[in-house]
Amino acid sequence: MELQPILDRIGAAMAGAADRGRVADYIPELARASTVPFGMAVVTADGRAHATGDARVPFSIQSVSKVFTLAIALGRLGDQLWTRVGREPSGLAFNSMIQLEHENGIPRNPFINAGALVVTDAILSGHAPREVLGEILRFLREAAGDDDIHINRAVAASEQATGHRNLALAHFMAAHGNLVNPPELTCGTYFHQCAIEMSCMQLARAGRFLIGGGATGPRLVSPARVRRINALMMTCGHYDGSGDFAFRVDLPGKSGVGGGILVIAPGRASIAVWSPGLNEQGNSKLGTEAVEWLAREAGWSVFG
Amino acid sequence: MELQPILDRIGAAMAGAADRGRVADYIPELARASTVPFGMAVVTADGRAHATGDARVPFSIQSVSKVFTLAIALGRLGDQLWTRVGREPSGLAFNSMIQLEHENGIPRNPFINAGALVVTDAILSGHAPREVLGEILRFLREAAGDDDIHINRAVAASEQATGHRNLALAHFMAAHGNLVNPPELTCGTYFHQCAIEMSCMQLARAGRFLIGGGATGPRLVSPARVRRINALMMTCGHYDGSGDFAFRVDLPGKSGVGGGILVIAPGRASIAVWSPGLNEQGNSKLGTEAVEWLAREAGWSVFG
Amino acid sequence: MELQPILDRIGAAMAGAADRGRVADYIPELARASTVPFGMAVVTADGRAHATGDARVPFSIQSVSKVFTLAIALGRLGDQLWTRVGREPSGLAFNSMIQLEHENGIPRNPFINAGALVVTDAILSGHAPREVLGEILRFLREAAGDDDIHINRAVAASEQATGHRNLALAHFMAAHGNLVNPPELTCGTYFHQCAIEMSCMQLARAGRFLIGGGATGPRLVSPARVRRINALMMTCGHYDGSGDFAFRVDLPGKSGVGGGILVIAPGRASIAVWSPGLNEQGNSKLGTEAVEWLAREAGWSVFG
Amino acid sequence: MELQPILDRIGAAMAGAADRGRVADYIPELARASTVPFGMAVVTADGRAHATGDARVPFSIQSVSKVFTLAIALGRLGDQLWTRVGREPSGLAFNSMIQLEHENGIPRNPFINAGALVVTDAILSGHAPREVLGEILRFLREAAGDDDIHINRAVAASEQATGHRNLALAHFMAAHGNLVNPPELTCGTYFHQCAIEMSCMQLARAGRFLIGGGATGPRLVSPARVRRINALMMTCGHYDGSGDFAFRVDLPGKSGVGGGILVIAPGRASIAVWSPGLNEQGNSKLGTEAVEWLAREAGWSVFG
Repeated sequence: MELQPILDRIGAAMAGAADRGRVADYIPELARASTVPFGMAVVTADGRAHATGDARVPFSIQSVSKVFTLAIALGRLGDQLWTRVGREPSGLAFNSMIQLEHENGIPRNPFINAGALVVTDAILSGHAPREVLGEILRFLREAAGDDDIHINRAVAASEQATGHRNLALAHFMAAHGNLVNPPELTCGTYFHQCAIEMSCMQLARAGRFLIGGGATGPRLVSPARVRRINALMMTCGHYDGSGDFAFRVDLPGKSGVGGGILVIAPGRASIAVWSPGLNEQGNSKLGTEAVEWLAREAGWSVFG
Repeated sequence: MELQPILDRIGAAMAGAADRGRVADYIPELARASTVPFGMAVVTADGRAHATGDARVPFSIQSVSKVFTLAIALGRLGDQLWTRVGREPSGLAFNSMIQLEHENGIPRNPFINAGALVVTDAILSGHAPREVLGEILRFLREAAGDDDIHINRAVAASEQATGHRNLALAHFMAAHGNLVNPPELTCGTYFHQCAIEMSCMQLARAGRFLIGGGATGPRLVSPARVRRINALMMTCGHYDGSGDFAFRVDLPGKSGVGGGILVIAPGRASIAVWSPGLNEQGNSKLGTEAVEWLAREAGWSVFG
Repeated sequence: MELQPILDRIGAAMAGAADRGRVADYIPELARASTVPFGMAVVTADGRAHATGDARVPFSIQSVSKVFTLAIALGRLGDQLWTRVGREPSGLAFNSMIQLEHENGIPRNPFINAGALVVTDAILSGHAPREVLGEILRFLREAAGDDDIHINRAVAASEQATGHRNLALAHFMAAHGNLVNPPELTCGTYFHQCAIEMSCMQLARAGRFLIGGGATGPRLVSPARVRRINALMMTCGHYDGSGDFAFRVDLPGKSGVGGGILVIAPGRASIAVWSPGLNEQGNSKLGTEAVEWLAREAGWSVFG
Repeated sequence: MELQPILDRIGAAMAGAADRGRVADYIPELARASTVPFGMAVVTADGRAHATGDARVPFSIQSVSKVFTLAIALGRLGDQLWTRVGREPSGLAFNSMIQLEHENGIPRNPFINAGALVVTDAILSGHAPREVLGEILRFLREAAGDDDIHINRAVAASEQATGHRNLALAHFMAAHGNLVNPPELTCGTYFHQCAIEMSCMQLARAGRFLIGGGATGPRLVSPARVRRINALMMTCGHYDGSGDFAFRVDLPGKSGVGGGILVIAPGRASIAVWSPGLNEQGNSKLGTEAVEWLAREAGWSVFG
């Protein structure tokens, strides 16, 4: 199978798509984004890379960062992490407080905001935010094999200024004893982690360690843990649209409000797609369509 | 890889397991069940069957039936079904009314009770319950290649007598215009469908059509639809324990309160396991452990 | 103070009011009602009656009936009733299932639908619906000193045909063991009780036993119980608009979806008002305004 | 009627009561309180005062302060305040986030924590916390006719250190645009307002302006507003135990987690009671019993 022609067709179609979704409006710096860009990159298990569109333009990875902080936290704490965060789909919006209240401050999974705050809080424990952000960047740079990955300070500041809802989640978990650091510190670190910028090409390369099955690239996480991270991406990776993504795409993925999605075809490829316009569930509209198209044409499905 | 020795080891271990879970107590006929039985059967893509323990003892398949009625309903209505039921994990108990109220009578997925009632209601439309139950049995018998599959009338009567919660769900959906037939009729059909009895061997054989990828056995559903049913089993198949099952087993499955689980290793095998004692999420305790063990030893994971 | 001139002014103003609210649309027989009628009657502690507008036209009392069935149930069961139903405002819509699920089938108070079903179920216990309806009518006729009070069978049939939501509530409570009779029987009785027709004059007279403080009229309930029923009307009488009614009117009351409201000025008067158009909380729009006006002009407030 | 003998009997009985409730444990400084104290003071409309037990010992008024900040906010903003906070009972715990999420950051009433934060935020607007706390103290001192009313700084600091839940509420409302000042500032002011200490005698005297009907004492609020504050105390003054308090006591009141309750007998008296042990709803156990007893013996009920 030739991937490049498929990517070219997808890129051409997406460039001309009329309905491009709506840019997220609750983070001022992101609200100014255009819905014009579309990029996609695929790195296969053998290490070869393919791309189309704006695949080398850096964008705000936002919640896609949660996959990498989860890998770091599991590496450091192991299964102890699961005493502080669950592994179940949430059935509610990504920033809901309701579930937290019903379950005494234990977030349902590490990919909703509350859960990601706990993960960042776990990594932060006993370190300065600057150190921890350095470690996250090092992990990403090593995974991508590319040192040109940075935090956009303007975006981080913008999130900080409007991050009341995340601070509410953090204070609420602190009230339940499920936060080790002061809420301001954990949230500050989290806002900076979300403001990391990467291109599709960098993100697809950084995702290689999740392909499993002897894929080339750095071996950052054990095979058993790779499968588990994939399982979480499958059931919880798209907030309250996780079931729909699994139903349509048949592959595990994690989306970010900046319009990026990291998708894994286990044993086959790491895929990154970016288009800032979002659908109703808050996931990239064209990005989801592009991945669905690619998975179908390439015959990539975890379900045979 | 030799499957039979693996199954033998699992069967021996499970026969001697001390903590066997608790039998469901809300259906009187099932509450009398023993936690002693354990059976497991595997039918591989090439049609070969392996078994251990009580794999030929019929048990009440209960919610495992929802996989088959979903296949029938999709065959009859196609994607129109999705106007009446969603495809998202519920994040709540299997028989919760709360979600229904928040989402105006549209159940989140076809595997929670409310969603399964809608599926049965959709099949029932314009037919007598007796006819529809006949059609479900015919589908199962053809899928399993075995005519000796029947409804346990005592169990059906027991569910009917204590089925107030399902009747509440049905009336609630009727109030929202999401039920075609009178609640008593839809619930009556549903109670009988849940009371179907099959052995692990029959169930594993009946699941062959979900293996995909050119597996032998009757081709009852298109490959695209097979993948989608698998996706739903992966994200929604174990109620509020779906995330945990995906995390531990890496395979799509559907459990029933009678202690049975149908699990699919896409492209590889159809697996049925049965042990009546349940874990805290209401899924077979030893059954889940056995499938986790088998998947690990056989190296079956949808995530490579 | 002369009441009649006040009533005359209110009647004239309400007859000419432009915004008359919206008729409830979920019970077909009531949905056909006009918003034109307005009637009001006041019976003071000394037994004198005053009226304006359509005060002698019978209307469907609907949930106002809950005050009378509560009085009957308390008379028969005493404080034992409170093991099956609470005394707290609900904070949710009148027919919500959510609270029921959170509190295991115990309705928060006897004036939301679930609570009223429990009250009717408690009276029904061991009797035929016909007998119980006869008893309710006898209570009302004696309280009003008027035998011309009847059930509108067409309205009862209309409620029965569309009563799925109440049946859902009843089945749900049955599932939690908080219903003695079959849900159909309890709901059937309840639908007929709601379909009782009375005029404002009859209703104001029937409410005299709640005035307390030596008011004339039949003494049907002890003074201590009268105060408690008033307290429940004050905190729970207008569903999720109870706080607002208390804030505006300062008097205990109970509204019905047919547009009637029974209001008590303790020690002073029993007031009935009727206008079918409802406000956003489901209470008579002009009725609420009329009672607020009357209370202000007459200087009737429980808060001095 | 002689009040003093009634108070003496109540005081004696409460001093010897075996089951004294449990002290709130979530504010460290309050958790160390003893359940031994009991005090009660009554100031009648004519200005005469009666007391029993520890009626002159200052205690932390906590949420009782909400009545006074509401009076101040209404005086300054008038009915505009009601665009930011509702007037309905909450049906949930005093510090729940769930309702806030369902209703987009508008608290249901000014007596739950979220609503009280909005009230304090409204008073704070454009002023320094020190000024606003000064104004609250001035209002209380004038109302009580006693300058010896102060803030306990140790309690305020203790609340601040453990106030994550209130900060979560504040940040959440800020996220919905329903907070004017920075959450830390509003919460800081609120924590100090809750840490005001008064004795029963001071509190009963401070409550005189709510008696209405020509009672002696400073006229701080208009009669119409007095009735409305009383209505809110009646329907919302005891969190999720408001209905029960109204049912048992028949009088409007406002409780605090420090064990104090301010109760108004409209036209008759202002009553303050204090005993630190709480019942299951978080209201003073002996305090509630004492007020119920007094109301019954004095024949004080808003319902005649």
